[in-house]
Parts: sequence; structure tokens; C-alpha cells
Amino acid sequence: MSLPRIAVDAMGGDEGVRVMIEGAALARRRHDRFKFLLVGDEAKIAQALDHHPNLRGASEILHAPEAVAGDERPTQALRRARTTSMGLAIDAVKRGEAGAAVSGGNTGALMAMAKLALRTMPGIDRPALAALLPTLGTHDLVMLDLGANTDCDARNLFQFALMGAAYARIVHGLDSPRVRLLNIGTEETKGTDDLRDAAALLKHAAASLALTFDGFTESDKLSRGDFDVVVTDGFSGNIALKAMEGAARFVGDLLRRSFASSLRSKIGFLISKPATETLKHHLDPNNHNGAVFLGLNGVVVKSHGSASAMGVANAVAVTARLLEENLIERIAADVAAVDPDTIRQPARRRVANTEGETAL
Amino acid sequence: MSLPRIAVDAMGGDEGVRVMIEGAALARRRHDRFKFLLVGDEAKIAQALDHHPNLRGASEILHAPEAVAGDERPTQALRRARTTSMGLAIDAVKRGEAGAAVSGGNTGALMAMAKLALRTMPGIDRPALAALLPTLGTHDLVMLDLGANTDCDARNLFQFALMGAAYARIVHGLDSPRVRLLNIGTEETKGTDDLRDAAALLKHAAASLALTFDGFTESDKLSRGDFDVVVTDGFSGNIALKAMEGAARFVGDLLRRSFASSLRSKIGFLISKPATETLKHHLDPNNHNGAVFLGLNGVVVKSHGSASAMGVANAVAVTARLLEENLIERIAADVAAVDPDTIRQPARRRVANTEGETAL
Repeated sequence: MSLPRIAVDAMGGDEGVRVMIEGAALARRRHDRFKFLLVGDEAKIAQALDHHPNLRGASEILHAPEAVAGDERPTQALRRARTTSMGLAIDAVKRGEAGAAVSGGNTGALMAMAKLALRTMPGIDRPALAALLPTLGTHDLVMLDLGANTDCDARNLFQFALMGAAYARIVHGLDSPRVRLLNIGTEETKGTDDLRDAAALLKHAAASLALTFDGFTESDKLSRGDFDVVVTDGFSGNIALKAMEGAARFVGDLLRRSFASSLRSKIGFLISKPATETLKHHLDPNNHNGAVFLGLNGVVVKSHGSASAMGVANAVAVTARLLEENLIERIAADVAAVDPDTIRQPARRRVANTEGETAL
Repeated sequence: MSLPRIAVDAMGGDEGVRVMIEGAALARRRHDRFKFLLVGDEAKIAQALDHHPNLRGASEILHAPEAVAGDERPTQALRRARTTSMGLAIDAVKRGEAGAAVSGGNTGALMAMAKLALRTMPGIDRPALAALLPTLGTHDLVMLDLGANTDCDARNLFQFALMGAAYARIVHGLDSPRVRLLNIGTEETKGTDDLRDAAALLKHAAASLALTFDGFTESDKLSRGDFDVVVTDGFSGNIALKAMEGAARFVGDLLRRSFASSLRSKIGFLISKPATETLKHHLDPNNHNGAVFLGLNGVVVKSHGSASAMGVANAVAVTARLLEENLIERIAADVAAVDPDTIRQPARRRVANTEGETAL
């Protein structure tokens, strides 16, 4: 099967063209079936390609005169969709000239542009940004939303759970992924009304869905491997994800300081270096790079702004995997299989019903 | 100066009476000026005291026939304020029979009871739970709110900033603590309306306050030591705090696995043990135990439910410190020094004014 080509926003990412092109080249060296549409400043891309003849042979360049700035407001970026590398990469997906788009640029702008150009799939009100987090278990945890939607109501959260479960089934081959809602306690009374309503919706509907709803979880349990999908609004998800990243880096810094504190520790460090290198590799965000917007009529992957070339290559590999596994069609089929009343009915009314039905 | 005695809710905490009493005994061994009112089941406390004659001599027992359950709704716990150990410990503070209360029990119930019995101080609408987090800098970070208030508006956040700064001045001896608001980005456009409004309030008022307002921060920057106080609503604060705890534990678990993976790594581990022990000590939540409710007319300290005796002893030491330093009076003085218009005026109106004044 031939893989549709991947549109790369070559101007996205803090490091600019060089890293994006190097990342694409690295991905191409690993998988020679990958083909690319490189979108951005033509001269800069051509110059970067001089170092990667292998990639040049598998790529076409699409010139974009402008780039979206990192601090640009999404509404402002939207107006420049036809001239920016990000806008043109997404447009290529819309017009079928690429199968997917990858960008390391402004997340809010990417979300806004992708939503406007590709639209959400039937039955989904808002797309969500999903990523894979390392755990102590046998596979990574699917976490969404990571920042696409600051405010989410119960129905949004319910839809995120559906999409997250579909994603976990695809990437981990699970039959009925275990799904939890992120909250500040596990008791049913904890959290916001929206969280409690979403829990009621999921509890009510889980039997007819291809997922197991396990209730609430707290953010200190995300790395244990006890469940497969964690669902949250974009604000809390972003706060939790970055808190974990920061804490992991903090522990690494402390460890380095401790090892450097005495000659004995330095010797111990040298001897145990293979162990700490394994840890470093496991925790390096570049090895988990590539967050995907679920719920759109097209595959759009966000690479971390500060990703290395290896990180970009991993985001490209994630993108290719989602194309091969027909992510969009499979999520759409899952959503279509849900009783429309369950997913479309306002949460409040549904919750009232649920409570009535289960009243003691 | 003689220190007022500390009321200890002996029934709070997951481990029950034994750990709370052992913790108080440990604190007493370290500081023989500490005196206690031990509140809870008289027979159980007396039995636990048999192992700690040193504590028995410095304590009085106040019998409470009941205890607040860990999963009890705050509204339900409030009705049992006169019969539970938690309620009676707080009541002792209200009646001046103790200078402060420490509990390891249900946080929501503790907050509700403390607020009802002690009331918030003039100029403060809601109390906030504040704790000290380890950083790479020269001192811990003051973080609030950690879960007392699920929803917070701009005025709540502004008041938390005031109280957090006062707390940082007291515990770290700073003149003008650097305060930031927790958000999902540092750009002015990021986050919720309440966060943007709180930022506008702080920006407007900072010149007349004993603090420096540094704008927004993201949750991956909390351990760097770049600022002294971080302010957030209780939902996000709880999510961030637990995410950091979980990630630190995750890294520790991975490190243990890595060290156990080969003979070479095991030898390296043994040699570098002093280094990893330092790390373990630094990260042990027991060493940072003792979160304080700021904004009440009395000192109430929350010990972590799963704290060890050493953790409880640390929470007691924090409590004593706050009594010695006259926390309540100093925060009240700070709040009183703020122009009442700034703090009481609805945030929306104030923000409108601010924008008008600074319009380009």
C-alpha cells in the first residue's frame, strides 16, 4: 500500500527550517516509503535540502511567503491561512494533496486553522489534542485534551473519551480501553459539575461503547499504567502535562547535582551511566513527540516547538502510523456507532435521567 | 515567649491515632517548648501516649466521640462539628484554648469547618490552602490555592496573591516576593478571563503592594526557583501539585528499575547511594508536609493524609513557626494596607478601568 504524502510546516518549531527538514530526513532514512510536501520559504527549504539529498528525492516544495508567529493570536493567524506555511500545509490536506500535516508551530493557531479548514467530524463538537505519555505499565497512556479547549462541558469530555478510546485501540491494539476522567479526587462528589456530568454520561453509556469507564483519577496516578486513556479539559490537561515535564526535569537536575557532589558519587555515576542513560532516554520528550488533533476530518499532528530533529522524526512516524491505521475512518465509525441521543443530548438532562434511573 | 499550645486532630490521617501521636511526640522531642491539646478518642489517645511519656507530660486530651470520614461531604461533616475530633480541634482555636490546629483529615471538611468557625479575615472572601514546594533555587516556592476552592474569580486570585506574598515574606524573609499566576502560556492572551483579569488587577496594584508581579508562568517552570509565589485556582493547583508528585515518584521508580537492570548498575547504585539518598530526602513529601489555610482568623494546618510520623512532626513545626511569626496578624496588616477599592471592586470594572488607562 502506498502511503499518502505528509505535509510538513517547515517554518514551525522554535529552531526553524533546519530542524524540521533534518527531522523529515531522519524519518525518511528510517522508512523509505515516506513522501513529503515541504511547506515554507522555498529558498530556505532548498538550502536545507542541500544537506539531505535523500529527502530531496522524496519531496516537493510548496512555497509559503509567510510564517505564523509563536505568539500570534489564533484569530489573527486565521486571516493569513492562505499565505502562511501552516495554513498552506493544512490546505494541502483539505485539497487531498497530502494525507496529513505536521507542524511545530503555534498550537492555538494550528488548532484554529485545522478546525476551520478540515471541520470536525459528524458527532464531534470540538477537536482535542491527544498525546502518549510514558508509564510504568506495558504501554503509553493516551491523554487528551492537552490544550486545544480551555473550557470544556460534559458533552465535550464525553466525546473526548470516545475519541481517546478509539486512539488507544488503534495504537495499542486494545479491545476495550480503560478510560478515566482527571479530577482532584476519586470520590463521586469531587470536582466541577461538568466533570460529574461527564462521569454520569460515561457510566450510563459505557456498556454500549468500546471502552471501560473506570471513574475519576488524580494527576499523581497518570504514570502507573493502571488505565489506558485519561480525559480532561485542555486547561487542566496542559497544566498536568507541563507539571509532569517540569518535575521530571527537576528530578533529573537534582540527580545530576547529587552525583556531582562528591568524588564517590561521581565514580558511582560513571559506573551506573547505562542505567541513567536508559532513564534519560525514557524521559526525553522527543521520544514521545507528536500530539494529534482528534475529531477532525484529516490528520494534523503537532510537534513540540522545541523538539530536536529526532523529535520531529518521531512526530512524522506517528503521523505515518495514523495514516496507515486509518485513524479518521476508525474514529468516525466509533462515533457513528454511538446512539445519537447519548452523545447529542444536553448533559444536564441526561444526568437527571441517569440519577432518576439509579436512585436508591 | 511562651508558645500557645497546638490542637492536634488525633483521628485525622490515613494511619489514624498512632501516627498523629507519634508525630506530635517527635516534634516535641525536637522542641520542648511545644504544648498540645490532643483531640479524639480518649482511650485510643491515652493508649498511644503510653509509648510517649515525654509527649504525655506536655499534653491535655480533649475527648471527641466521633471522627470525620475521608470521603465525607463537607456539608455533612459541618453538622458534626461539635462531636468530631476535627470540629473540636478547630473549636479550641476559636475559643482561644489552642493557638492553632493541625489535622491530617478530609481537606474539604477541614476547610468548611475552619471557615465557618474562624471566619475569613476582613478583606478576604475565601481562604486558600498554601504549601511550600522544593525548587532548585535558594528557597521553597509558596504555592496556593491547592484545592480549597475549585472555582476562583479574579478577585479571589488577587487576594491569594496578597496572602501568598505575605506568607513568603514571613517564611523566607523576603521584602518583595516575586509573584506569578499559573496559566497555560505566558502570553497576555492565554488562559481564562479570570486569569487575565487577575493579571490586570495585580499589574495595576503591584506598585502599592509589598510584592513584585511577574505575569504568568507555566507549570513546567515551578521548580526552577525563578520566583517566590505561584497563584492558581484550587482545581489547577491540585492538578499541578499531584502531577508533580506523581512524576517525581515515576522517575524514582524508573531509576530503581534502571539500577536493578544489571550487575554493573547495581554496583554503581551502591557506590552512589549517598547521592540518591540526598535526592530521596529532598523529594520526600514528608519533608515538605504542612499546608496552611491562609485568610482565616486563626492558624489551621493540613497534614497530608498519608504522612509518616516525621511528616506529622514537620507539619507541627510549620504550625509552631506560623504562631511564632504572627502569621495572622501580618497577613491582616498586609490586606488592611491595600486600597479597599482595589481589592473590593469587582474585577471586571477594575479591568475596564485599567485597560482604559493603558490603552495605546
